[in-house]
Formats: sequence, C-alpha cells, structure tokens
Amino acid sequence: MKNNNFSDVVFNRRSIRVYDESIKIERQEMLEMINEAVKAPSSMNLQPWRFVVVDTPEGKEKLKPFIRFNTRQNDTSSAMLLIFGDMESVEYAEEIYNAAVDAGTMSQEMRDKQMEAIIPIYQNLTREKINDVVKIDSSLFAMQMMLVARHHGYDTNAIGGFIEDNLAETFGLDSTRYVPVLILSIGRAIDKGYESMRLDAERLTSFK
Amino acid sequence: MKNNNFSDVVFNRRSIRVYDESIKIERQEMLEMINEAVKAPSSMNLQPWRFVVVDTPEGKEKLKPFIRFNTRQNDTSSAMLLIFGDMESVEYAEEIYNAAVDAGTMSQEMRDKQMEAIIPIYQNLTREKINDVVKIDSSLFAMQMMLVARHHGYDTNAIGGFIEDNLAETFGLDSTRYVPVLILSIGRAIDKGYESMRLDAERLTSFK
Repeated sequence: MKNNNFSDVVFNRRSIRVYDESIKIERQEMLEMINEAVKAPSSMNLQPWRFVVVDTPEGKEKLKPFIRFNTRQNDTSSAMLLIFGDMESVEYAEEIYNAAVDAGTMSQEMRDKQMEAIIPIYQNLTREKINDVVKIDSSLFAMQMMLVARHHGYDTNAIGGFIEDNLAETFGLDSTRYVPVLILSIGRAIDKGYESMRLDAERLTSFK
Repeated sequence: MKNNNFSDVVFNRRSIRVYDESIKIERQEMLEMINEAVKAPSSMNLQPWRFVVVDTPEGKEKLKPFIRFNTRQNDTSSAMLLIFGDMESVEYAEEIYNAAVDAGTMSQEMRDKQMEAIIPIYQNLTREKINDVVKIDSSLFAMQMMLVARHHGYDTNAIGGFIEDNLAETFGLDSTRYVPVLILSIGRAIDKGYESMRLDAERLTSFK
C-alpha cells in the first residue's frame, strides 16, 4: 500500500497545487507521518519543530488571509501543515537526554556532561542565532515530511511566501516563542505538477 | 547496487561519527548525488544552495580549526560538504525561468509575469529575511542529500556547531554573499550510530 520505491518517491516529487477535495487524511495517519518525519536530525537533538495541522473548513478559513499566492492549495488540500520553530526548545533538553539514558543509548555521565554543555551554550546564543537553528532544523523536518507524505501516497507543496505576522497567535501559539518556518499543503494530487529546472551541480560546487 | 528501499534509507538513517578512511568518493559520484539532492524545492525555485566539497588532506586541514566538536567526522569521512546560502541567488532568476520556457513547462507570458513579480519582491526583502529563506532552502537540500547519500550506500552527520566566521573566505567564497548553513560529513559508516529519542507527534501537534 505504501510506496517504498526510494527513487520514485524522491526524484518524482513535484510541487502540487491542486488536490482531490474528497480525500481526508485521518488525524491518526497525520500523526504517524509526523512521527516518521521527526526522525530527521536536529541540533543537539533538541527537535525545535512544532506543528498546527489545519484540516477543518473553519481552520482553512482562518488561514486564508495569511496565504498570498497559494489559495488553491489551501482550498483543495486535505490539510495545511503549519511548521513553527520553538525558540525555547532547550526546555526539553533534560527530558530528551534523560530518555536517552533510560533507553540505554547514553550513559548517565555523558548525559550530565552534555547537559552541562548545552544549557550554557543556549543561554549564550543570540535570538538571531537561535532563529537560524530552529529554521534549519524545522526545514530538515519539512523535507523529510514531504517525502514521507509521498511514501503514504500523498503529495505536498512547500509554501514560504505567506504572511507571518500574527499567524502563531491566530492558531493559539505565542509568537515570541514560536516562529513560522514553512507551510506544507498535503493531499492526493489532482494536477501532476511539472519537472522544474535545476542549476547543474558542477556550477554550484567547488572541490578543495 | 543502490539502496532503493525507502523505509530503510529514511527510517534507519543515523548520525554517523566514524567512517572508513580507505573509502574515497569519486568527484563524479559526489556531483551525481548533489544533482539528485538539488531536486529539493526552493522558494520561487531560486536554488540558493552552494557547495564546497572538502575531500583532500589539505582541505581537511584547513577546515579543522572551524570544527569544534566533530573532529572525528572531519578526520575519517570521505568528504565534508560545506553548504552555503547565496544571499544574491535572485541573480539566477532570469536564467532559471528562461530555461523553464525553453523546456516548455512555462509560457513566455508566465515567465514575464513571474520575473516582474520576483525581482521587486527580492529587492524589498531585508537581509534578515533573505537569510531566513536561504537557510530554509539550503536545509531542504541538506535533508534530501543525507537520504540520497544513503541511497548511494554512504552515511552522513549534519553538523551545525562549527565556527562560521571566515569559513567562506577560507574556501574562496565572499562571506557577504555566501552564508554558512550546515556541514555534512559523508562516508562509509564504521560506527553504527544509535537510535535517538524523539518527542511524540501528539505532544508537538495541534489540530485546527
């Protein structure tokens, strides 16, 4: 039932703008996909990604004014996945590292050493630097989520050009803590998308 | 020869710290992997990712002072892939959109409309906002590159905690234009890594 063909999933991914409106994604399956996509790595394993899944007509209506160019995606997708970065993800450090000790993948000594290192590192980071880290990490998640969605038979479109101001509050999150990163539309594709041009690796790369 | 099992490639990826030092990755294969990974999407398809592949002893030696915690990766990997974001990627807009017209995936009219929209949008973006965009896009590339590497039989470690100042210049790039995003170590795994703990999707997600 799932598409397990790596080349097909990854290399035939296209940005899909129009979806089959009759297809609903069960919330249980959405959580399953998210659990598969959060296997992406993150800085110090702090996992700063947070999500709002907009999958009701009321939610879509609230989201509409924030979407500038991608109204068809909002209108037709099964869900819009709002991805936020948590600027205070270090609060989870203790829980995450304790779990590693419990699972036997980290010694108590290593855990203590890591905690002693991580907390002051984070306390000394500027807000600008934390913003970089949560955007990088949340984007690693986003790419894996687009591929996991295809593994499950769905398609996506990564949307960056939305209005950020007030988006967090509108969906019940504190905007000081949670910064918007990307929105993914997810659903069963109706249009086929198209293969878009890429600059060749040779032009982008130097060897040293 | 390639691993085409999506679940294995994606869900069994681990951060690998120690690599088989006898394994060299041919530059041709590295470019092939990069060409597969740049199929990741980017904002307005501007593809702001740029790369330095450090795969010589001299290059590794120059990189050493920038690596804070991950010296084993630098010492043992086949290559360290330095990923930079190009703050002036809009310079490629015309070439990219002309190529879409040539390929028949975009009409001349749509191309003109898009160019008229994109150039002023970019000219009005703050440096802070462009920084966000290139870090998000380059991270989408990075995630896909980690998976493509496994498809080719290699493993990786995404490294964020390196010294950014002067990294671009040291490898021949203008630091005003090219901002460091991530470094990936790439090679044949010797250690097996370990499955690290993830916060459950239910705790990270709300539905609206």
